[in-house]
Order: sequence, then C-alpha cells, then structure tokens
Amino acid sequence: MENYSRTKALFISVSVDCVILGFDGKSLKMLLMSRKGKEENSDYNDFKFPGSIIYANEDLDLAAERAVKEITGLKNIKLQQFKSFGSPDRTSNPRDTRWLENATRQKVGRIVTVGYITLIKMNQVVGTFSKEYDVKWFDVTDETVKLAFDHTLILSEALKEIRRQVTYNPVIIFDLLPKKFTARDLRMAYSTLFSKNYDVRNFYKKFIEGEKYIIALEEKERNVTHRAARYFRFDRKAYTKKHSVVR
Amino acid sequence: MENYSRTKALFISVSVDCVILGFDGKSLKMLLMSRKGKEENSDYNDFKFPGSIIYANEDLDLAAERAVKEITGLKNIKLQQFKSFGSPDRTSNPRDTRWLENATRQKVGRIVTVGYITLIKMNQVVGTFSKEYDVKWFDVTDETVKLAFDHTLILSEALKEIRRQVTYNPVIIFDLLPKKFTARDLRMAYSTLFSKNYDVRNFYKKFIEGEKYIIALEEKERNVTHRAARYFRFDRKAYTKKHSVVR
Repeated sequence: MENYSRTKALFISVSVDCVILGFDGKSLKMLLMSRKGKEENSDYNDFKFPGSIIYANEDLDLAAERAVKEITGLKNIKLQQFKSFGSPDRTSNPRDTRWLENATRQKVGRIVTVGYITLIKMNQVVGTFSKEYDVKWFDVTDETVKLAFDHTLILSEALKEIRRQVTYNPVIIFDLLPKKFTARDLRMAYSTLFSKNYDVRNFYKKFIEGEKYIIALEEKERNVTHRAARYFRFDRKAYTKKHSVVR
Repeated sequence: MENYSRTKALFISVSVDCVILGFDGKSLKMLLMSRKGKEENSDYNDFKFPGSIIYANEDLDLAAERAVKEITGLKNIKLQQFKSFGSPDRTSNPRDTRWLENATRQKVGRIVTVGYITLIKMNQVVGTFSKEYDVKWFDVTDETVKLAFDHTLILSEALKEIRRQVTYNPVIIFDLLPKKFTARDLRMAYSTLFSKNYDVRNFYKKFIEGEKYIIALEEKERNVTHRAARYFRFDRKAYTKKHSVVR
C-alpha cells in the first residue's frame, strides 16, 4: 500500500453540475443560471450550469435532482451522469472561489464535480422556471455567454457525449422534440446538434422513410405561411424492438 | 444561493477505481488486487479493483493511470471514465474504513470514487504484473470472490456500460481479442459478455460474414486437436468508415 501514503489529506468538495439541453425548432439551447458578483473595480455577470455542492447524506444522483429542482423548478427530470471533472485548477479563478465561498459560507478548496445531462422538450417547460434563481435558455453556440469555472469544458464534453449517443442510439434525439414533430423539426435537430446541413431529400430518405419507428400522422401543421407539413411521432415500442440491447 | 448554505462542510475524499477486463477465450476476466487484514477474531482476504485516493495536484485521469501503473505494472492502458459512485454508505463497512485509514495514514470519511474501465488483450500482458501488489485475474462471474467497498456495484455498472457500448459500437470487443482470432473466439467473447449462447451458424452470418471490417486471413490454427479454424483480423479503417460518428 506504499503508494497510498504519498496521498496528501485534501480539503476537497464534491459538486454536481447539470447540463440541461433543449431545442426550439431552430437551435440547441442550454439552461443557465445567472451569477452576479462584485470585483475590485467592477461588477460582473456571468453564467453557470445549475449545480450544487453535495450535502452530507446525499448520493450524487439525489444532489443533482435537488439542485435542478431548487434552481430551475423543474421536477422529475431524467438526469444522466456523463462525466466527472477534477482538474486541480478548476477553481484557479479567484472570482469562482470567492463566489462559491460566499454562496456556501464555507472555505472552498479543490472541487471535483460530477456532470449530469438531460434533454428536455422545451414546449413542456414554458413558464415553469423557479422565480428564486435567474435561469434562462441560451444558444449553446452563443459566444457572448461567459461560463464560470470550467463549464465551457463541461459543455463541450456534454455535447460530445450526446452526439455519440445519438449516433449510435438515435432514440434520445426525440427527447428534444415535441410529441408531434415535422420532418423539418427532426432535420433541424440533427443539423443543430451536429452543426451540419442535411440535404432535405436525403435526410428524409435516411432518417424518416427508412425508419419504422417514425410514424406519419394524418394531422398537418396549421396556420403556417408555408405549405403545411405532415406531423410524425416517435414509436418507442417499434424502436426498442429494432435496437434491443442484448443482441 | 440560499440552498447552498444548507451544505455541510464535508470531510470527503475522492478516489479512482479501475475495472480492467480481459478475455481468455472462454470467459470474461477482471483484474483484482488482494486485500489482507486483521479483525478482532480473524484475518480476512478479499479483493478490490486497482485504485487510489487522488493526490493533491492530480487530475482524475492521471490518478487512474498512476494507480493502474503502480498496482498492476501495466503501462499505456487506455482508461475510460464511465461512472462516479458517491453513496454516503460506500464506507459504512468498518473493515473498509479501517483498511483505508491504515493504508493512507489519514482519517477517512466519506469517499466519492470515479470509476474507470478498460478492455485489454490478456495475451499481451502475461507476466507483466508488478510484484509489489498481489494482482490476479478472476472470472467476473466468480461468486467466491468477495469484493471490498461497493466494488460489486462498480463491476455490475461497468459490465452494463460495456454491453451498451458493444451493442451500439462493436469495435471495443476487439480490444479483448488477440490480433488474430477465430470465429469461435469472437462468438465466445459475445457469449461471455452477454451471458448468452449463440447458434454457431447464425452468429457467423450476423457478426462475421455480414461485417466488412472482419477480414479472413490465409492462416489457420496450428497444433489443435479439433479441425483447425481460420483466423480473422479486425480492420479498424473499414470499421471507422462504416461507423463514422458524425452522420
């Protein structure tokens, strides 16, 4: 066990941070909380993913659910742990340490954070956000948004993970779409997730016509200026049958 | 930030634990280190995955590489972070706490551990294990092996993750196989991973004939009592072409 003895006793905290993604029909959105603070010569206002340091008797998943509920007001969100971040310089920015010590009323040293991710249907959460915190949707590509700590890294890792999952197991992209969606909605979701343009015809052939689990409905769009498009729905049963995990 | 103030300052440690899996042609193996200790009325000998508490200036990935190198002697192992485990009762067993405090010469409270996984070719690591620690291969299904802490949970979560990955992205199963493998080797690898028997003919059709990235070699087995089987190799280029992540 000799190697263990080289371990320094660390003053360390563990937190959770939750990347909540949505899709508004045009672009991929992330839900951020505003962070305001004072500095020597100025105030600042930047943003972070909803999160919290874990409580004494809290499991990681519980802490993530609690943080999301308290900060955003969203309940029963299916959070998925995707990666932990523990670089020693996560808290090297004095602004972050100061803000956190002020917020937690405790000395903050090194923090290892466990990243969670979830995709939600934006149309189902309109107006449900808690008033206590200032949370808003932002384009994931919005470069004017300054993220605290290493949350820029957490975002890029979260997007990598989602792209990987959608590539191998497209099911989760339907978590971003309304229950009824048009071919264009699905194409735009892929397009914004993979920052890639898809030829309308080819996309339809490859991702809709070809897939038994995407069911065309009788219903079409209403009150639209362009030609009303047909709605589709995702059939989870048909999908599961095709993609059963144990081959 | 009101919710943060409910946070108790926690005496907490962060560790890494590495699930190293191999395949001997018959069954899936895990690499474990032996843990010996004394208790009131008896000695005990159980096992754990190679791991370590992280050092003061160590990133998570670095700690995992170091632990694997120090404990097993294995170098340049591609470790993949798969899940973190932070249940407050991970260290509820006094035996575990006592052992760890003795090993680390520090007080141990709650520990959050970051799980890593890797699949390795057993034939390439024969005789390379470090002498300093008692590490051995065990069948992942061996119920006589008592695992410390929550390592039984870590194992089952690691296997779930590998099954999920192989199902959607078979490439990683070839990390378990020798560079040259027979159809039987591949079938047994699937069979042991999914605890499932595959019909020889159907398996060949579905997993070998059907796949452009599995290349038949001229070479056949030598000095075998049964009919010598042909060797195959995995063609990563052909695979990547077929499974390019960004669609």
